[in-house]
Amino acid sequence: MTDMRSRLADIVGAANVRDGADAAEDYARDEGLTSVATRPAFVVAPGDAGETAEILKAAAETGTPVTARGSGTGLSGAAVPRADAILVSFERMNRVLEIDTENHVAVVQPGVTLRELEEKTAEHGLVYPVYPGELSGSLGGNVATNAGGMRAVRYGVTRHHVLGVEAVLATGEVIRCGGKYVKASTGYDLTQLIVGSEGTLALVTEATLKLQPRLAHQATVLAPFGDLTAVVRAVPKVVASGIGPLILEYIDAMTMGAITYTHDLQLGIPDQVRDTSQAYLVVMLENRDAERLDDDVAATGELLTALGAVDAYVLPGPSARRLIEAREQAFYTAKGAGADDVIDTVLPRAALPEFMARVQGIAQASETFVVGCGHAGDGNVHLAVFQKDADKRAKALRELFAASMELGGAISGEHGIGHAKKAYFLDLEDPAKIALMKRIKQAFDPTGVLNPGVLFD
Amino acid sequence: MTDMRSRLADIVGAANVRDGADAAEDYARDEGLTSVATRPAFVVAPGDAGETAEILKAAAETGTPVTARGSGTGLSGAAVPRADAILVSFERMNRVLEIDTENHVAVVQPGVTLRELEEKTAEHGLVYPVYPGELSGSLGGNVATNAGGMRAVRYGVTRHHVLGVEAVLATGEVIRCGGKYVKASTGYDLTQLIVGSEGTLALVTEATLKLQPRLAHQATVLAPFGDLTAVVRAVPKVVASGIGPLILEYIDAMTMGAITYTHDLQLGIPDQVRDTSQAYLVVMLENRDAERLDDDVAATGELLTALGAVDAYVLPGPSARRLIEAREQAFYTAKGAGADDVIDTVLPRAALPEFMARVQGIAQASETFVVGCGHAGDGNVHLAVFQKDADKRAKALRELFAASMELGGAISGEHGIGHAKKAYFLDLEDPAKIALMKRIKQAFDPTGVLNPGVLFD
Repeated sequence: MTDMRSRLADIVGAANVRDGADAAEDYARDEGLTSVATRPAFVVAPGDAGETAEILKAAAETGTPVTARGSGTGLSGAAVPRADAILVSFERMNRVLEIDTENHVAVVQPGVTLRELEEKTAEHGLVYPVYPGELSGSLGGNVATNAGGMRAVRYGVTRHHVLGVEAVLATGEVIRCGGKYVKASTGYDLTQLIVGSEGTLALVTEATLKLQPRLAHQATVLAPFGDLTAVVRAVPKVVASGIGPLILEYIDAMTMGAITYTHDLQLGIPDQVRDTSQAYLVVMLENRDAERLDDDVAATGELLTALGAVDAYVLPGPSARRLIEAREQAFYTAKGAGADDVIDTVLPRAALPEFMARVQGIAQASETFVVGCGHAGDGNVHLAVFQKDADKRAKALRELFAASMELGGAISGEHGIGHAKKAYFLDLEDPAKIALMKRIKQAFDPTGVLNPGVLFD
Repeated sequence: MTDMRSRLADIVGAANVRDGADAAEDYARDEGLTSVATRPAFVVAPGDAGETAEILKAAAETGTPVTARGSGTGLSGAAVPRADAILVSFERMNRVLEIDTENHVAVVQPGVTLRELEEKTAEHGLVYPVYPGELSGSLGGNVATNAGGMRAVRYGVTRHHVLGVEAVLATGEVIRCGGKYVKASTGYDLTQLIVGSEGTLALVTEATLKLQPRLAHQATVLAPFGDLTAVVRAVPKVVASGIGPLILEYIDAMTMGAITYTHDLQLGIPDQVRDTSQAYLVVMLENRDAERLDDDVAATGELLTALGAVDAYVLPGPSARRLIEAREQAFYTAKGAGADDVIDTVLPRAALPEFMARVQGIAQASETFVVGCGHAGDGNVHLAVFQKDADKRAKALRELFAASMELGGAISGEHGIGHAKKAYFLDLEDPAKIALMKRIKQAFDPTGVLNPGVLFD
């Protein structure tokens, strides 16, 4: 191990290698509720792709596991290292290399945070519209998990905005895939394969991201509904209307109560309405033209009332911002309330009413308390699961995932599989697909050093 | 071979197997200008995924090449079989299985044509917005080549609309990837890997496609410019305006002359303007609201004039439709005029002026005549190349592709590599990426029976 330490120091400089035992506790974990904090053998901070490639060569030669880390805000444990691993921290590779205003593209290093990219794009009237909620998250981590968030109903998720990557293979080769164009038919799309692969195929050292024009005007409509089923039934109709919402979220009454209490939010909803509402729909609209936005807000209010909303409130700017911020932090609210796990299964949006009915049944039968909110426009349901008994909880989770898959869904919409959901993934997914994914993994990483234990055993 | 024929007949029924020698000439070719027509050993038409799997098992056991065929409208030869191959024609698997109006999804078999899908979606006020121009093209072929077309600037290309596939591997396994949801982070994205793989990784037997609301109102603005550089310089500005055009095409004067002549088009452009214009920009807009569309048309006209257009004409509906149709058929116009090859390189849209300048230089130096048009909004340039001498032509093409790649582009935006552009692909692309793609190919197709000779030697 002394040999490895000096070899790593030769690559990145002594100041940029630490023994895991000496590194900050933060390197041992992510934000997942079930992640087991583990200090790696070494924490290494490369300065560029060339250094990253040398680290991977050293790892492959010695069979040493490598885990990549951005900001550590993941929820599935994919950035949590093994005890014998080299943790590659991209903290030094944190520059926005370019905001290209003609091609509407940003070129970033993996350690750049969403907050920094938001600030840099705003200066140019552009926006990177993927908004997973945690602004301290890194772009490298977002690429690794194919992060989503509230604006996916309008703009899609990380995958739809990564036009190209520079990536280091476990062979030590550095490749560049894609570029500043939105389409190509020139061999296999390696970029799309690397996005969402949770650090198991390659380490991304640069990403070329598609930007959008930043529209000037936004408005938020909040609609309480008598019951959750009515909310989720309304969702496909709002999408079909062509109004094109930026955000289309459902929040159940329990979660709304918790986040408004935690964040001391006053939304101006009469007590009587609040007491009889089981769930809320939040619709955010945007437009480059203020008048068009006003018309759309009016049309949305009428539509929601026609779809069974008790009422529809246009939230003033500051309240709307605080509600969205509070919703973004719902995970932390659930964590603070003692949630034992969170899931983010995705399914056809029209299957949400049936799924939510099944969730209630599974929760009751397993004596598990389940509350949530979700990106209703994309059928992505975020549930906080309260059940101390690990066996009962695992059984309930397996049933929830199986129900989602039976209705045409998948285990995770945006958090990823990592370690946290691996057992369910390997248990419920088609073995032929698992075997194929393992062969693909082998094609990228013949020595198996990239994030072993993530996705596969 | 008699054994194989009877084995295939056992799988699909005798009526659905033909010897290549007895099959129609059409099975031997696609529409590519350089494709070499080749009759396969057998033409087989499976009725479902199970039969397709049995065909692939028989092929893998005997090492017999398999090429998939939709409508044969490809331009790069990926559907042209080898003489010893089984050609799998999806002509019997031609049903639209579902138009799901709540999830905005179509589920189709690979033999469905774009025309049929257009008709079926129109009945429900929805649209599959990928529009590669040739409506007789099959969805299976579109998925295999990641087909693009004129509306990509607004809606993206095939890749962005394929939410899931059922696919048969060369192992005979049938897998289902993705589904009726727009995002997931549940293992590697096999769907996106299979899209654009030109029949070399798997045979797609069903595709789940994202649909959009069909907007009611469309308008087309035609703007002549004094020179081509001014046109391509205007493109990023139109995109940045936020007007969100559905179509943003450039057509050079030579190509415009040819397509208006061939299609007997009267666009109402004064002779004097036409005679001094070197190129045209076609901007199509759409909106769900007629008044908003009118405002956008006016704003577009002002913008184009400010960007140097000689004038901006709003085309009446029938003229606009005929111009777009004629533009779609530009390939056939070039073919009719005796073009020796076509290319469809893609590059950052802001690099178009520099690229077009280099094209002129390459054309002059190689005594090659090059004209074109293109999806300017996505930086996808379609050039017809007139040069009878094969060596001179190959040299010119290599220089054109090298120039595009040097400016950050890729060889093909939407036609694919197939056989037609393989030599350039293998010559110009990073060997590390080629080697990785070959390992991925091996992971899917260990016996190498799927479309050998396409993409790789």
